[in-house]
Amino acid sequence: MSGNPSNPTFDATIEVMLRSGVSDPQGATVEKAVHALGYAGVSEVKIGKSIHLKIEAPDETQARATLGEICDRLLANPVIETSDIALSGELSRNQA
Amino acid sequence: MSGNPSNPTFDATIEVMLRSGVSDPQGATVEKAVHALGYAGVSEVKIGKSIHLKIEAPDETQARATLGEICDRLLANPVIETSDIALSGELSRNQA
Repeated sequence: MSGNPSNPTFDATIEVMLRSGVSDPQGATVEKAVHALGYAGVSEVKIGKSIHLKIEAPDETQARATLGEICDRLLANPVIETSDIALSGELSRNQA
Repeated sequence: MSGNPSNPTFDATIEVMLRSGVSDPQGATVEKAVHALGYAGVSEVKIGKSIHLKIEAPDETQARATLGEICDRLLANPVIETSDIALSGELSRNQA
């Protein structure tokens, strides 16, 4: 499925992590496992989601705004999670 | 738990994603949901894990090597997943 074919495509990486202060049992479990394997110098393990996608938008500002909406509506729970959007810039312009 | 207290601490972000070609049902489901919400211009959604941690090591090379081992032994399944390690450099040196 595609939007307006004359829009450029941006490559985006969205990182969704739990807010600091929110309990992260998955991170705590991995930290214990890492220590059990003998790696003592590892601490503060936090586990989140990384989402890669491509998005068609007129410009980077629009792409970022749309991704912010998608994060708040679907990908992250803003009450307990933060989302960080990184755009790798205009990838290709699918000229009609 | 800590290692050698004279070692610097590095801030690391590890991204574990499915290899291209490996079926990603979670990504496909999110993509369908994004389209159902009316965002037609989103494609190639892939979902992976993002792991943040702190690691004490004598230097960056050593930190990276240890994290590579931890990825292969615990965090990722190298058969179907790739892991990408980003170190944000020496954070602090806990001098004894």
